[in-house]
Amino acid sequence: MKVTVLTGGVGGAKLVLGLMHSAKVSSLTAVVNTGDDFRHLGLAISPDIDTLLYTLSGKADPAQGWGRESKTWSFMAALKSLGGPGWFNLGDGDLGLHVWRSARLAEGATLSQVTAQAARLWGIAPVILPMSDDPVATWLDTEAGPLAFQHYFVEQQCRPAVRAVRFEGAAKARPAPGVIEAILAADAVLIAPSNPWLSVDPLLAVPGIAAALRETRAPVVAVSPLVGGKAVKGPTSKMMAELGLEPDNAAIAAHYGPVIDAMLHDGSDAAPPGLPARAASTLMTTLADKVRVADEALTLAGTVA
Amino acid sequence: MKVTVLTGGVGGAKLVLGLMHSAKVSSLTAVVNTGDDFRHLGLAISPDIDTLLYTLSGKADPAQGWGRESKTWSFMAALKSLGGPGWFNLGDGDLGLHVWRSARLAEGATLSQVTAQAARLWGIAPVILPMSDDPVATWLDTEAGPLAFQHYFVEQQCRPAVRAVRFEGAAKARPAPGVIEAILAADAVLIAPSNPWLSVDPLLAVPGIAAALRETRAPVVAVSPLVGGKAVKGPTSKMMAELGLEPDNAAIAAHYGPVIDAMLHDGSDAAPPGLPARAASTLMTTLADKVRVADEALTLAGTVA
Repeated sequence: MKVTVLTGGVGGAKLVLGLMHSAKVSSLTAVVNTGDDFRHLGLAISPDIDTLLYTLSGKADPAQGWGRESKTWSFMAALKSLGGPGWFNLGDGDLGLHVWRSARLAEGATLSQVTAQAARLWGIAPVILPMSDDPVATWLDTEAGPLAFQHYFVEQQCRPAVRAVRFEGAAKARPAPGVIEAILAADAVLIAPSNPWLSVDPLLAVPGIAAALRETRAPVVAVSPLVGGKAVKGPTSKMMAELGLEPDNAAIAAHYGPVIDAMLHDGSDAAPPGLPARAASTLMTTLADKVRVADEALTLAGTVA
Repeated sequence: MKVTVLTGGVGGAKLVLGLMHSAKVSSLTAVVNTGDDFRHLGLAISPDIDTLLYTLSGKADPAQGWGRESKTWSFMAALKSLGGPGWFNLGDGDLGLHVWRSARLAEGATLSQVTAQAARLWGIAPVILPMSDDPVATWLDTEAGPLAFQHYFVEQQCRPAVRAVRFEGAAKARPAPGVIEAILAADAVLIAPSNPWLSVDPLLAVPGIAAALRETRAPVVAVSPLVGGKAVKGPTSKMMAELGLEPDNAAIAAHYGPVIDAMLHDGSDAAPPGLPARAASTLMTTLADKVRVADEALTLAGTVA
């Protein structure tokens, strides 16, 4: 099967890794959220793309759950000794990707080109596409005022209650080359178990992507991020409550609306009403878990095709 | 004594460290060559200023003789895995300074301000001044064509024969704040045993600096970089031969001409004719050596004052 998956960072990357190792998948394209991208100390950082690159090339840090496996923190120590900002941790190995990407972008390369180059050099077979080469920035309107994504997510550790989420630049952003084609030409499209409001909505806010999901002949299957009414990681259920929603699959299905055709959800949660659904254990700890969840989602896609 | 020293990188920094620990010195200002400064991967790198900062704060690498003591090279490994340039080695600890400085400069700070801030945070008592806040770039016309300094010095390891050296931007550069004052108000001015053509000439090419050396009431003492007709490190004697000069103190004294009043030279080399001079062992291995050479230079300054 030709599979296209829309994804955010850590949780989504687990599904993408499962798809990469699934015998059912003949070709795989990941379309990745770039709403978290930001400039830090002048460096261009793309957290979700980085997570995909690290996860699919075996470089992700299994202990901390994000970033590159890095035994050394000499950069941060030197930066802090100079009074530089300490709230965003960059391992020494991470710096290589960020500095290299920043230099390539300054030379005029697009984020798509830089991402494809890194994937090729690191031996990653799936295609990794940023949702857009144009800048899109996720902002949260919170009780503590407006916060750029990383300040909310990392610096404030998701503490302030969220009132709304918006995606600056999204209305003018164009899908990156290949994104619409990958959705239209797929045999199945999956939406990874990333935070719908923070990690998937930026993708849907880029003009053309939601329309392509409705138009494609492929079934579109969302994998719910909930396990027992909570996200495995991150603020999904806390945010849902702050937005006045029940932390259940009905609310997530209602949020996605007509862009999805079915939902794979954890057996500990109720199925969304009125939508084709399949229950499975969706916790992805081992590689075997990841492949199994990927296969479950593709099985569900087969039944609604 | 109030001492001002004009210096390049590694060799010069040894003398500055000696001056810092000399009982004769009550206040010390180092005016540092920035002709080696360059942008690498978008980062602002100031090799000679960095060497001073590392040396005077006890962070220099005693083994490799340049850069910050760094046990880890994760950045370079990641950079090379992405096809990035490997010819300029940056330790993980170095990145902290380079990234921080680049971000501060992008915010509008001057190189003087950034350097002073780093020196303060790292507890360095002497004043470290870049020769200029304006860009000056040392270029070498070689048998292999024109080469920017770092490409000649690091990438080509000083192999191509040098025909001429020039300092792009120098004619329009202004001395950094405090430079002229530090030369005019000193009790003694030293020129460190750096390469006269590569590391000291950029300083002299900034309009106003050579004039201040001639005008100051302080004696100006050059410490010769030669020990037994060769530089301790670097291409001084090789370059002198390529420029048609004998590798001796007479040629160095003739090159400096009226900007110096005296020369401290190694006992293994002949004194320059027609110039007050003092012979000493100028090899600086231990800290005691460095203090002794500093004191010898200041003693000579006292005799010509």
